[in-house]
Amino acid sequence: MTVPSVSETLIRVNYSETDQMGVAYHARYLVWMDIARTEHLRLCGASYRELEARGLRLAVSRVALRYLRPARFDDPVRIRCWVRALASRRVDFGYAMEHADDQGLLATGVVALMALDASLALTRLPADVRRVLRAVPDPVRLGVPAESPRMERDAS
Amino acid sequence: MTVPSVSETLIRVNYSETDQMGVAYHARYLVWMDIARTEHLRLCGASYRELEARGLRLAVSRVALRYLRPARFDDPVRIRCWVRALASRRVDFGYAMEHADDQGLLATGVVALMALDASLALTRLPADVRRVLRAVPDPVRLGVPAESPRMERDAS
Amino acid sequence: MTVPSVSETLIRVNYSETDQMGVAYHARYLVWMDIARTEHLRLCGASYRELEARGLRLAVSRVALRYLRPARFDDPVRIRCWVRALASRRVDFGYAMEHADDQGLLATGVVALMALDASLALTRLPADVRRVLRAVPDPVRLGVPAESPRMERDAS
Amino acid sequence: MTVPSVSETLIRVNYSETDQMGVAYHARYLVWMDIARTEHLRLCGASYRELEARGLRLAVSRVALRYLRPARFDDPVRIRCWVRALASRRVDFGYAMEHADDQGLLATGVVALMALDASLALTRLPADVRRVLRAVPDPVRLGVPAESPRMERDAS
Repeated sequence: MTVPSVSETLIRVNYSETDQMGVAYHARYLVWMDIARTEHLRLCGASYRELEARGLRLAVSRVALRYLRPARFDDPVRIRCWVRALASRRVDFGYAMEHADDQGLLATGVVALMALDASLALTRLPADVRRVLRAVPDPVRLGVPAESPRMERDAS
Repeated sequence: MTVPSVSETLIRVNYSETDQMGVAYHARYLVWMDIARTEHLRLCGASYRELEARGLRLAVSRVALRYLRPARFDDPVRIRCWVRALASRRVDFGYAMEHADDQGLLATGVVALMALDASLALTRLPADVRRVLRAVPDPVRLGVPAESPRMERDAS
Repeated sequence: MTVPSVSETLIRVNYSETDQMGVAYHARYLVWMDIARTEHLRLCGASYRELEARGLRLAVSRVALRYLRPARFDDPVRIRCWVRALASRRVDFGYAMEHADDQGLLATGVVALMALDASLALTRLPADVRRVLRAVPDPVRLGVPAESPRMERDAS
Repeated sequence: MTVPSVSETLIRVNYSETDQMGVAYHARYLVWMDIARTEHLRLCGASYRELEARGLRLAVSRVALRYLRPARFDDPVRIRCWVRALASRRVDFGYAMEHADDQGLLATGVVALMALDASLALTRLPADVRRVLRAVPDPVRLGVPAESPRMERDAS
């Protein structure tokens, strides 16, 4: 099976996500990125539900987001998601959010996750998980500051 | 110590709670009621954090809400909260939400909670919890349908 | 075109919706019902985005929910949605939420909406909107108290 | 009146903010920072509600967050907030979130806001707003990448 290195997940902005500026509230983008990450892992054969059942937790340690154009109620939003960097206890995801109709870039972001065990102590990513997560170069310029100066790309 | 039978908790509508209608989104009231319930339990000497540490869960089994007047960004909202009915495995809370400046009634509601153990199976409310939770007549007309026709008030 | 009188919308429980009880937080069901209502209106040819552009607002005036079985992270949830009752300035929706894999009923609910104009004053539902919204008998027993004793079904 | 250059706002983690990892969900920190920013502006004499009534919008253009220690249900959290940098159309806020009981640092963050008019077009921060917002050096090491390399501190 060929796993796409950049996954695409579609969401639609619902009314609860709007604010009185008439746009999607900025914190909601983190939830969209979480939804896209879950789908990305599923596509890679690493269901997050099953990872948790095995005792693994992926906890967010850093996020950075740049907002370019507002998303509005009922807009279809495509979230492109990929693994940017991979280390023994950490994985970084990159994201590009686009308006699904006109392809305009809405926002870009990165999220760094630490591997934790069930007691929330730092642990190593299981070998089978590391195997299916392949780091790729950013397909779009993220425009967020480099998050991980000391992390090598996919250095194992 | 005298515990007030109707507690009062103050929140302020934050920007994330508004929607593009320019008012607080209707689902947020359930969160305000949850915050008020936690404070009510604390005042009664039954910290919900400690109840959970003892293995008890209070899970919502029913809610009903009536919205009378919108709450807006930055409005201070007073949540009055009380126990309406108490049974061996269930407790019903009543709520009145008011604009804290002009005292106008914004919404009323009821929430029924079932006592569950750590595996989420139905259980009895511990005796010490039942002792501190005293059901009182509704201090305001709720205007929501009677939720618990077969529950007697405080029948133990 | 035949519009289904009961629409079906699928969502998947995301991580942000879980709470530390390990289940979907109860207030999230109101958001799911909002998403389903938007899809129901779209299927009926009455896009809510366009209704708002025309100056109409549908504001929630009452909700009632009964929770039967918890939804969990990553569960697919099917939301069945229909118009229960229709009046000149109000429309009531009914909802049944089911686990999409085993068809088990998770929750039922009703939401009453008032028609408002852009200044949030009560107004009449436009004739073309009333025409496309057809009230139907509840396809499942809701088990929530009758919300609208004085409203006739589809009385125009 | 002396306005503190670093404001402090207290929130308490409510149940809706927890996730099934048993900690406060990471996107909630952005809401806490929004609440703290609103309070900071109020202390400075620039109520955000009034700014919006005058036609100004402050829209988030960038965020960065570093999570150090989880916050848990019912934890009291102190949010320290300050202006880091100020330009004609932009203001950057810094944040440090601490457990209010043991003073432990939970997270740090930055949020950059652009000044927009009511039609969401870029505009200048009003002179009276710029006057009350004084940029100060970070009181704690943020540990997030420099967000605004080309912005001078308080360069007017």
